[in-house]
Amino acid sequence: MSDGVRELLLSRIRDVADYPKPGVMFKDITPLLADPEAFSALTDTLAALCVRHGATKVVGLEARGFILAAPAAVRAGLGFIPVRKAGKLPGATLSQSYELEYGTAEMEVHAEDVSDADRVLVIDDVLATGGTAEASLQLVRRAGAQVAGVAVLLELGFLGGRARLEPALKDAPLEALVTV
Amino acid sequence: MSDGVRELLLSRIRDVADYPKPGVMFKDITPLLADPEAFSALTDTLAALCVRHGATKVVGLEARGFILAAPAAVRAGLGFIPVRKAGKLPGATLSQSYELEYGTAEMEVHAEDVSDADRVLVIDDVLATGGTAEASLQLVRRAGAQVAGVAVLLELGFLGGRARLEPALKDAPLEALVTV
Repeated sequence: MSDGVRELLLSRIRDVADYPKPGVMFKDITPLLADPEAFSALTDTLAALCVRHGATKVVGLEARGFILAAPAAVRAGLGFIPVRKAGKLPGATLSQSYELEYGTAEMEVHAEDVSDADRVLVIDDVLATGGTAEASLQLVRRAGAQVAGVAVLLELGFLGGRARLEPALKDAPLEALVTV
Repeated sequence: MSDGVRELLLSRIRDVADYPKPGVMFKDITPLLADPEAFSALTDTLAALCVRHGATKVVGLEARGFILAAPAAVRAGLGFIPVRKAGKLPGATLSQSYELEYGTAEMEVHAEDVSDADRVLVIDDVLATGGTAEASLQLVRRAGAQVAGVAVLLELGFLGGRARLEPALKDAPLEALVTV
């Protein structure tokens, strides 16, 4: 990815103060999605990562991850697999719990969507504490597939998600297009 | 859209009995998303509808609508606008309530994402009773934009969503790629 693309993507991420609660500066990617040039450049970049890391399937994490992962999968010519919050997938699922600030939540994937023949790239919009990404990697590995890597538009470096993900990534790459 | 494409799309939609509750036959689109050929054909078809109806922006409805609308927007070279459940968008929003089986819910859009210069195509996966699609059209019109139409992969004709949508559509088209 060129410095020009990185600058373009970064310029379309907006800071929103005090969301979702006072004191938090939220990184809002909706201006990027609304800009066809920026969204297309993002899609090209993510699709190129699919190819570079030998992915055979793309996992998107509910809900904003869907918006980035689905176009990347289509552009790379790969199947798209949704990882969803508990209870949203109708078929037989694998389920993985993860920790929230207070309590736990669960992510699920259709068991038949991922097999031991697959190499899966997980795509999400933002890497924060890494809890959902970690759960998704555990789902991919429990389904018997290889992990091609994790790709995010934006890494919030100060939250330490990269370190948390390392054990689940093993030697697979974590690609962050923009880091703040 | 050719009959071959319609057959392909229909063949990749799976019936799941008794989801989300006993007696309901759920139409599961995840096999279609996992099939690169079918997902690409779907994306091409939706992007062609954007062009045919003169859309300048694409709205996707949370959460499965994101998976169809985002690739279509990218392929058509248009900006993507998420319509989300209440409280999920960080900026200043317009909010529209709609009826559920029991009670009401709200959909929101960032007010600045849609203007009176826009013609908006709303994309979702399934048209059921039409409640969320109707709310999204009301949001688009309240923002001052024109409605280019509504496009769904699958219309559940027996639920009467088409009739419910008519007043909000006015003369704009409802495009259903597959109807059951």
